[in-house]
Amino acid sequence: MVKTFEIEDFGIKIGRLPKGNLNKISDVEGVKVGHSTIDTEENKTGVTILLTQGKNPFKNKVTAASHVINGFGKSTGLVQLNELGTIETPIALTNTLNIGLVHDAVVDYMIDECEKDNIELKSVNPIICECNDSGLNNIRKRVVKKENVFEAIKNANKNFQEGDIGGGKGMTCHDLKGGIGSSSRILKIGKDEYTLGTLVQANHGLIDDLTVNGKNIGKEIGEKIKKTKEKDEGSIITIIASDIPLSSRQLKRICKRAVVGLSRLGSYIGHGSGEVVIAFTTSNIVIESEKQDFVEMKILNEEKIDIVFRAVAETVEESVLKALLNANKLEGYKGNIKESLRSFL
Amino acid sequence: MVKTFEIEDFGIKIGRLPKGNLNKISDVEGVKVGHSTIDTEENKTGVTILLTQGKNPFKNKVTAASHVINGFGKSTGLVQLNELGTIETPIALTNTLNIGLVHDAVVDYMIDECEKDNIELKSVNPIICECNDSGLNNIRKRVVKKENVFEAIKNANKNFQEGDIGGGKGMTCHDLKGGIGSSSRILKIGKDEYTLGTLVQANHGLIDDLTVNGKNIGKEIGEKIKKTKEKDEGSIITIIASDIPLSSRQLKRICKRAVVGLSRLGSYIGHGSGEVVIAFTTSNIVIESEKQDFVEMKILNEEKIDIVFRAVAETVEESVLKALLNANKLEGYKGNIKESLRSFL
Amino acid sequence: MVKTFEIEDFGIKIGRLPKGNLNKISDVEGVKVGHSTIDTEENKTGVTILLTQGKNPFKNKVTAASHVINGFGKSTGLVQLNELGTIETPIALTNTLNIGLVHDAVVDYMIDECEKDNIELKSVNPIICECNDSGLNNIRKRVVKKENVFEAIKNANKNFQEGDIGGGKGMTCHDLKGGIGSSSRILKIGKDEYTLGTLVQANHGLIDDLTVNGKNIGKEIGEKIKKTKEKDEGSIITIIASDIPLSSRQLKRICKRAVVGLSRLGSYIGHGSGEVVIAFTTSNIVIESEKQDFVEMKILNEEKIDIVFRAVAETVEESVLKALLNANKLEGYKGNIKESLRSFL
Amino acid sequence: MVKTFEIEDFGIKIGRLPKGNLNKISDVEGVKVGHSTIDTEENKTGVTILLTQGKNPFKNKVTAASHVINGFGKSTGLVQLNELGTIETPIALTNTLNIGLVHDAVVDYMIDECEKDNIELKSVNPIICECNDSGLNNIRKRVVKKENVFEAIKNANKNFQEGDIGGGKGMTCHDLKGGIGSSSRILKIGKDEYTLGTLVQANHGLIDDLTVNGKNIGKEIGEKIKKTKEKDEGSIITIIASDIPLSSRQLKRICKRAVVGLSRLGSYIGHGSGEVVIAFTTSNIVIESEKQDFVEMKILNEEKIDIVFRAVAETVEESVLKALLNANKLEGYKGNIKESLRSFL
Repeated sequence: MVKTFEIEDFGIKIGRLPKGNLNKISDVEGVKVGHSTIDTEENKTGVTILLTQGKNPFKNKVTAASHVINGFGKSTGLVQLNELGTIETPIALTNTLNIGLVHDAVVDYMIDECEKDNIELKSVNPIICECNDSGLNNIRKRVVKKENVFEAIKNANKNFQEGDIGGGKGMTCHDLKGGIGSSSRILKIGKDEYTLGTLVQANHGLIDDLTVNGKNIGKEIGEKIKKTKEKDEGSIITIIASDIPLSSRQLKRICKRAVVGLSRLGSYIGHGSGEVVIAFTTSNIVIESEKQDFVEMKILNEEKIDIVFRAVAETVEESVLKALLNANKLEGYKGNIKESLRSFL
Repeated sequence: MVKTFEIEDFGIKIGRLPKGNLNKISDVEGVKVGHSTIDTEENKTGVTILLTQGKNPFKNKVTAASHVINGFGKSTGLVQLNELGTIETPIALTNTLNIGLVHDAVVDYMIDECEKDNIELKSVNPIICECNDSGLNNIRKRVVKKENVFEAIKNANKNFQEGDIGGGKGMTCHDLKGGIGSSSRILKIGKDEYTLGTLVQANHGLIDDLTVNGKNIGKEIGEKIKKTKEKDEGSIITIIASDIPLSSRQLKRICKRAVVGLSRLGSYIGHGSGEVVIAFTTSNIVIESEKQDFVEMKILNEEKIDIVFRAVAETVEESVLKALLNANKLEGYKGNIKESLRSFL
Repeated sequence: MVKTFEIEDFGIKIGRLPKGNLNKISDVEGVKVGHSTIDTEENKTGVTILLTQGKNPFKNKVTAASHVINGFGKSTGLVQLNELGTIETPIALTNTLNIGLVHDAVVDYMIDECEKDNIELKSVNPIICECNDSGLNNIRKRVVKKENVFEAIKNANKNFQEGDIGGGKGMTCHDLKGGIGSSSRILKIGKDEYTLGTLVQANHGLIDDLTVNGKNIGKEIGEKIKKTKEKDEGSIITIIASDIPLSSRQLKRICKRAVVGLSRLGSYIGHGSGEVVIAFTTSNIVIESEKQDFVEMKILNEEKIDIVFRAVAETVEESVLKALLNANKLEGYKGNIKESLRSFL
Repeated sequence: MVKTFEIEDFGIKIGRLPKGNLNKISDVEGVKVGHSTIDTEENKTGVTILLTQGKNPFKNKVTAASHVINGFGKSTGLVQLNELGTIETPIALTNTLNIGLVHDAVVDYMIDECEKDNIELKSVNPIICECNDSGLNNIRKRVVKKENVFEAIKNANKNFQEGDIGGGKGMTCHDLKGGIGSSSRILKIGKDEYTLGTLVQANHGLIDDLTVNGKNIGKEIGEKIKKTKEKDEGSIITIIASDIPLSSRQLKRICKRAVVGLSRLGSYIGHGSGEVVIAFTTSNIVIESEKQDFVEMKILNEEKIDIVFRAVAETVEESVLKALLNANKLEGYKGNIKESLRSFL
């Protein structure tokens, strides 16, 4: 088991809500994450998979929503996600030029899984998100294969690794080594406790803007590293999971709070950055074979939603920081080097 | 009681679903409509009010959504309606230059009603819609007064009049006399019957495009009347009510089918026409004083929603026709005359 | 050269605007369409490609917009298209389960084309649209290959075939044989003439609702055929091209008028139908290598836009009819047969 | 002339771009702001007016866009603003329950102004925004009158006052005295200099979250004041003006960066806060009487837009701070007291 660095290890504190057991999105019951990493001299890339609820998400669709902060990105599946308010596949994170292939692999996987469940799948809406890792990865070689998708699915587990791994292998964030980060919070609503967790693929931001614990440390770090980014391009994907009973309208509102966490770290949402947020709840599952005319839902009293917004702001900020803190220094394509934030703290 | 002309009186048939008892939006239990009309030589205008559920909609907010087909219009309240998915005031229909005043009057009304219910109202989101009646009404004189709003509310009842009345007094539709129209359908879902009703304030369209029963009769009529419209401007407001348990996401989808009915009558959604659709369900009431952390909702199985879409298409088309059929020939401001469609059938 | 059936051959007339030379989307200068068709006993499917302006759309991006009428569909690329208002790849139409692979092939193609133009492509946003042809095609076999994409691109020309060909091979429309259809209009704006053309991949609608020339002929036809569709599912993709100088905001408005044409043919926009509209203008090209700080644009005076809306309504209605009229009777997967509309006129 | 406190007076620095001459939105040529304040024991409220370009904005409409961060607000006019991409009236800021009346007054004003310009105004789209000042103002008394609107328009000038004045009189921000704030930046694009300015009506946020210069100073201040806000409700309106040539699509993107500034001050965009952003450019004026078929526009090369996004983030953060720093301690309705942030720095 690889150690996960926590922000407290570096004296950083974000927010006021208590954290989940693992401080990962998988603290939400049923959520699992797996990676498949490609690590050669020329290629630093991979696939990260998030399973929302079990092996066949088509059978049990989670209620969901998405929000595009900045649409310079190629994510697939958002049109149907927004129309129907559900997710029916694993969520895959990969690089920009491989999303077609990963899409194709997810269709393969879904056909197979549905067959096992006696569903003859004729239509499915894969959610594939991407960031551009061409700074460290020879992206035009397009080395991701379908096997990487299947492997990442097979690897999915609760205690997954963060940092420069899977779809995060080639990421650059605030001109440092970026990658996959995750965080969670426990929310008390009435007498009961609920969990909200976030996972990011962080590949955005400029070093000069990096702000940690409210202090702009980026400018100083920027003088010590070889900067390669003049523009905020590269994207950040944010996935938010919770077990709180919510409607897709409420989940859409929740998505819109992710930008708060990004802003506090110094990003101003650059033109070239594809910033997509997806949120889902494991409550209010929509069953594929539903035969009833009407279904019962339980949803949060809107007047109580503020604590959920706060949890989003906190976990997104912390997830990006954990992506930075857990990513190791890496020398990639054409000898490009990205340092780990850890070296500067 | 004034007679309402039905399309069957003129040999017209629209759709295949059975109609409600009154064939009006008020076939949805609890929905009432009232008018206040101003009818002088110079001014032909007024206010139409729709009560969603009782006298104080702030206490019991209906679940709702809206959709803008074409946004050349000034309707108020849609921002909050879309965010929270609820309506908390009567819906008012009036002319373009009086929506500020009508808004102000609805605030007056809501403060008073809330006081009776021991609610100290500090914030409220009036839904005020408008069409431009300047063809028949000296709109710049702005003769609508707060009293017209209060009177329309007081007049609200199930068996309301259609045609050139209330907010429909000065309307022009396909260059004929337009106004208020309404229609309803009974939908069988499982073993139970539900109602969906539509109300329009119809002020859009060109005569040459008018198509009834699939036949373009407008061109021929156009040769017999004094045309005053060269452009499709003027707007159409569509309100859809139902007692089917639905979510606001589903209601948004429902709103999007209104355009089908308009298109079939020959409209191509002109640049100058403000086309706004609002839909609500009297199921899933959101209680102002809700104290529970979570609320139960019942919503339609998405796979069964097609019949609702069909009912929207049918009732919108029929409502516009009923607005035309129930409107009487009218001589308005500056001697402008709009004929009744009835004279040509 | 295969004959294209025109609606006038069957005594049908739609609208009032004059048609372009070919009455196809390719009447817009520079627009070309190519097909690659798979036609075996088990598989009826393929790819249709639309080239917006030359072989490398990345170098010269057309100004564009999109609109989702109903989002039960999987089209890729709309997020970035809406953010930046440009299209930078060929537009591909195929079946639902092959969009990942077609996406992957378009990336291949774009890398190659850009290499020829000395652009090292690291990010590209393929526009891939789909309809579900599982009624006539063994869709789960996923027989479309990259070669089909390349072939369709190579085949692209002005005088392309309509009907059951390319991505339209396995389409079913109003329970008859559907496919690819196209139509165009000449618009006089001031002293100059402009062209607007539409192309559809038509796979939507129920037979009972089919309305031609304002007459519901579908019910009668429905009694003569073997119906396989109880629900309006399957989708319709609409591409609109023009050489009129327009902004992306105006193109978005233009997209919203496509639904008018669909409605007039009897569709009520079913729940299961993915209805996506994309519009672009060959004026206002955004150059990839633009170095200037500011660029000049010419856009239509908004007050003159009505004729464009009318052209959209007319061409969409006619394009769907042409898809139906040019499609031949076809026996597909599991012996399913779809008749040609021609047999009933 | 009243002194305006600048953030530097308190040792605060935000961002890196140089400021405009006045450090106000009116640094954008032609933009003026005026106030009318109501200040009695019971009522603390008023109207603030922003003139975009001269006395009659209907004649010369600025190109514009809007974005709703959180829609718990009642702003009017956004539907048409988004459809047509223009603003044709002064922008008014007032309290929640008076927007109908202010709307009505702006219609009065516009009819009069148009009459002077020989335009017979029959339709106009007032942009009225609001925040809820019921914490310090007896809002239910609705003391704003039409005269306040006319007075604010008459008072409009470049060197306007900030803080607890006009529509900002009764505002509460982070549980301190809020109000009107403004800031500007000079942007060098190519060889030329442009200006971007922001104005806020700040009435949002909790004291415990207040973060200045990256330091959470709110918790400490919170222990010294009488808190009255447990929830983040009350709203913030943001107006962004620039003379950079931009399209409405670009202005929409610009609006979306306002949230960055709010987040950095500690807000997480509360449920009860109506957060609306409007942006316009004084380039690309749309002339009411435009007779040409096509109009020329100049727009920013999209690749150069990052500096504009950065300017938005900086000016929004600074404007909110200036609203706080320029607001004086105030005792309002029912003896409620809000302290000035100045007392704690």
